[in-house]
Amino acid sequence: MIRQSLWAMALLVATTAGAQRAWFASERDTWLREAAESIPPLTERIETPVGLVESVRDTGAFQGWRMIPAGDMDSLYGHSFKERKEVIVDFGRHMTGYFSFDIGRLSADADAPLRFRLTFAEVPAELNTPFDPYPGGLSRAWLQDEVVTVMDAPATVELSRRVAFRYVKIELLAWSSFDFAVTGMRFRSVTSASGEPKPLASTADPTIVRINRIGLATLAECMQTVYEDGPKRDRRLWIGDLYLESLANTYSFRNHGLTRRCLYLLAALADEEGLLHATVFEYPEPHPQTGQHCMDYSLLYGVTLYEYLNATGDRATAEALWPVVVRQVEHAMTYLRDDVYDMEKQPAWWLVFDWKDDLNRHAPMQGLMTFAIEQSYELAKLLGRESEVAGWPRIVSRMKAASRRVFYDRLEGVVVSGPDRQRSYLGQVWMILSGTLSPREGERALRTVLADPDACYPGSPYAYHYLIEAMIRCGMNDEARRRLTEYWGGMAALGADTFWEVYDPTDHFKSPYNFFPVNSYCHAWSCTPVYFINKYADIFQK
Amino acid sequence: MIRQSLWAMALLVATTAGAQRAWFASERDTWLREAAESIPPLTERIETPVGLVESVRDTGAFQGWRMIPAGDMDSLYGHSFKERKEVIVDFGRHMTGYFSFDIGRLSADADAPLRFRLTFAEVPAELNTPFDPYPGGLSRAWLQDEVVTVMDAPATVELSRRVAFRYVKIELLAWSSFDFAVTGMRFRSVTSASGEPKPLASTADPTIVRINRIGLATLAECMQTVYEDGPKRDRRLWIGDLYLESLANTYSFRNHGLTRRCLYLLAALADEEGLLHATVFEYPEPHPQTGQHCMDYSLLYGVTLYEYLNATGDRATAEALWPVVVRQVEHAMTYLRDDVYDMEKQPAWWLVFDWKDDLNRHAPMQGLMTFAIEQSYELAKLLGRESEVAGWPRIVSRMKAASRRVFYDRLEGVVVSGPDRQRSYLGQVWMILSGTLSPREGERALRTVLADPDACYPGSPYAYHYLIEAMIRCGMNDEARRRLTEYWGGMAALGADTFWEVYDPTDHFKSPYNFFPVNSYCHAWSCTPVYFINKYADIFQK
Repeated sequence: MIRQSLWAMALLVATTAGAQRAWFASERDTWLREAAESIPPLTERIETPVGLVESVRDTGAFQGWRMIPAGDMDSLYGHSFKERKEVIVDFGRHMTGYFSFDIGRLSADADAPLRFRLTFAEVPAELNTPFDPYPGGLSRAWLQDEVVTVMDAPATVELSRRVAFRYVKIELLAWSSFDFAVTGMRFRSVTSASGEPKPLASTADPTIVRINRIGLATLAECMQTVYEDGPKRDRRLWIGDLYLESLANTYSFRNHGLTRRCLYLLAALADEEGLLHATVFEYPEPHPQTGQHCMDYSLLYGVTLYEYLNATGDRATAEALWPVVVRQVEHAMTYLRDDVYDMEKQPAWWLVFDWKDDLNRHAPMQGLMTFAIEQSYELAKLLGRESEVAGWPRIVSRMKAASRRVFYDRLEGVVVSGPDRQRSYLGQVWMILSGTLSPREGERALRTVLADPDACYPGSPYAYHYLIEAMIRCGMNDEARRRLTEYWGGMAALGADTFWEVYDPTDHFKSPYNFFPVNSYCHAWSCTPVYFINKYADIFQK
Repeated sequence: MIRQSLWAMALLVATTAGAQRAWFASERDTWLREAAESIPPLTERIETPVGLVESVRDTGAFQGWRMIPAGDMDSLYGHSFKERKEVIVDFGRHMTGYFSFDIGRLSADADAPLRFRLTFAEVPAELNTPFDPYPGGLSRAWLQDEVVTVMDAPATVELSRRVAFRYVKIELLAWSSFDFAVTGMRFRSVTSASGEPKPLASTADPTIVRINRIGLATLAECMQTVYEDGPKRDRRLWIGDLYLESLANTYSFRNHGLTRRCLYLLAALADEEGLLHATVFEYPEPHPQTGQHCMDYSLLYGVTLYEYLNATGDRATAEALWPVVVRQVEHAMTYLRDDVYDMEKQPAWWLVFDWKDDLNRHAPMQGLMTFAIEQSYELAKLLGRESEVAGWPRIVSRMKAASRRVFYDRLEGVVVSGPDRQRSYLGQVWMILSGTLSPREGERALRTVLADPDACYPGSPYAYHYLIEAMIRCGMNDEARRRLTEYWGGMAALGADTFWEVYDPTDHFKSPYNFFPVNSYCHAWSCTPVYFINKYADIFQK
């Protein structure tokens, strides 16, 4: 109550940007403390490998490689590793955490250090594609190969680097006259996901069951001390990933403390104008990616807080962070010109939306902004604070009207965007989710782009999420189920243990980074089948 | 007193090998405890680099490379390392310990891990010779290059591996869009050497002063929790190195606790027959190189204990370990046939003596054994235990007589060894040190091989030590000084910070391991100028 009145007071007084800045600064420490107090405990489990495998070329397999069994662990342990020199070990599922193994004595005493290269892989092709010379566009250090020198033996070798993997290849790089065994492999897996999600209905299709299971694994792996975007890469909190992960969490683990932590952390690390950073880091101490703002992500923060309040009833958090939502929306509103988001206004922020350079983002942005303001207003109503933002409903109405004027080709029944009047899936999607198009209009628009091979289609699971949601909104339930089953089921059929950052059924080697091994193969924004399957049981579990 | 009478009792009772074994086994824990209690404290110092250097080709320099100054540390710190990508830093002297540096923020927040290769070098050529493909005969992992991944920044990077070096090269292997500086380099140097050795006489030649300084550095670097043979490689206690290092220590640091520890450790880790192992390891727990026995080293153990007692007056230790000396001598005596060491008797142990495959070791072994028994008998006298080994003087006499018959070519005045009657420096040396040849005979014998280009000359500083000692024994003081000045001074003139494991003035690339970068360039057995210069001040400091 004290905080609430402080804010009310602050709002009254803070007619200048300076005062607003001062208020945000004054809250920062409190929010950081709240974020720290919500750090979830990590569940640790000691895992052991299931067996040895070999990579075999298979043009039918994902990225051309598949693993075949190559013996049990006893065929490694207790035998000379000096003779073998290389092994691939399968831990049976995707894991995130800390790897260790033992160097056991076989013959004579160790008289020199050993050296190994350990390569951790989420998918088989990572072990069959030379990393150097590295052609990729992100730091090569994301690739999970480590060189370790072991000075004495017998020894326990424990890697300090946290890795995310299913397969580990161990290569012997240096040895001496004595023989030894590689033995005692174990992995301390970590996740903050806990509890047992509700089982699906017995009527659920086996493919749906499988997709749900893989989605849960993806989510659990990304749930660490923040919602990470990927446990292999980039291991950080993004607002967009937080939104989708927290939705999936609500319909599975219900570990809402993690959502609370992330909401506070983002708020605490907003810039001095109170504007959220799109991504923040926990280490070496909590800090934002300075200057990294994304307008679509910033607006989704309010939607996330709204969903969080709905799921938890935690009014205290929603009250505390409500001003942050207001700040983002009001800032976005400065980008409106004649009720349309102005793509020319500077500074032009990055609009994420999808991994698609060719996507014209104007219509999607207009739609998302409308959607976000409307959802944020719903949050205001839950908090009894409509009066603070009394102008929002009128702005939403005007934006919708403008959208229909500017972006909607009434004749063709399709949303167009940009000077070339691009027809994109996401253009339709966001005009549907915002209610700018009626369900009937939305269905027609979607069917139009679905039938148009030249339409700009989604390039990432992140974008696919919104497509499925829009289909459901339009009552295209069968289409939604088919699409989900095809897209995520496609990954499942290719042997995915967790869902991938990038999946294009027509191009297994697609990479936004010019090197597919550096793609993340366990990526938060791909976990949302968990949300759909469990929220819309009547559609997906029937 | 109790221990002494126990041993006397044990000797009386132990008429069988079994009883002797039982007695050794019963002492093992006590000796291990004594060894543990004598672990010396390590003096730690935080060292900082002196500047940047560049390698330049120079055919006149040792191994073809020398370092030239390339800027002060400020020209590295605070500047973009992403632009530079590689640097060589000079710490100004040889150091042993733990390296760390900081990753400082320059621009933007770190959004990805970095990767570095760090290569530590004792001599410039180690940074200018590709390590791979590795042609060497010892584990490649001795080479001090480490690859480190730094997940977050800013960061402090601390290598857990102990390294021995003067120069470190840092190469950037992986980076991202953000810029950063490599800064805050520091080194936690460790040594158990403490105290200030006595300064040399003001009359001492500058070359002698320099040799003494380098020898002290070599010794101090090898003085860790045992006398190591080399802090880069092999980092372990050998009896032969212990003998020379403890001699040098007696005439410099006088940290006798370390000698005591090593004597106990070797005793505790003898095999079940009470026979010493030539080398022992401290990690993961104290243990010997099982089965690694060297007859010359085993016999030098008693000589080392004798010198230790002389230097310290520590009778308790000498009393406790005396039976170990007896055991080694008695075992060696089983190798005598007609008073000559039998090279055919099995098991034939390794006889170290020198890094020279072509050295015939028969005469050297006969001489060393005679010397060692005589010195061990001197130890018995100091302890009042001559009666226990009353037969030894007669055996020594008979061995000397046999040596003169078998190995001494009276006509030529030279010691010969083996079926090809090899004339080696070491053959003369050991017959001199054992007193088998008179000083006058010794001088003649030495001058004969010195003048003979086909004589088998010393291949290592270890062998050189005994040559210098033998020269002094024969009164060839000028020759000893000249030889020491030439040999060790040769290394000094080539820029040695510490004396090398291998030095052949005619071949800078000589390596017993087929790859000169894996040679140790700070090696215990090369530190003995410290002993000579300080013990024989009248010869070396005049």
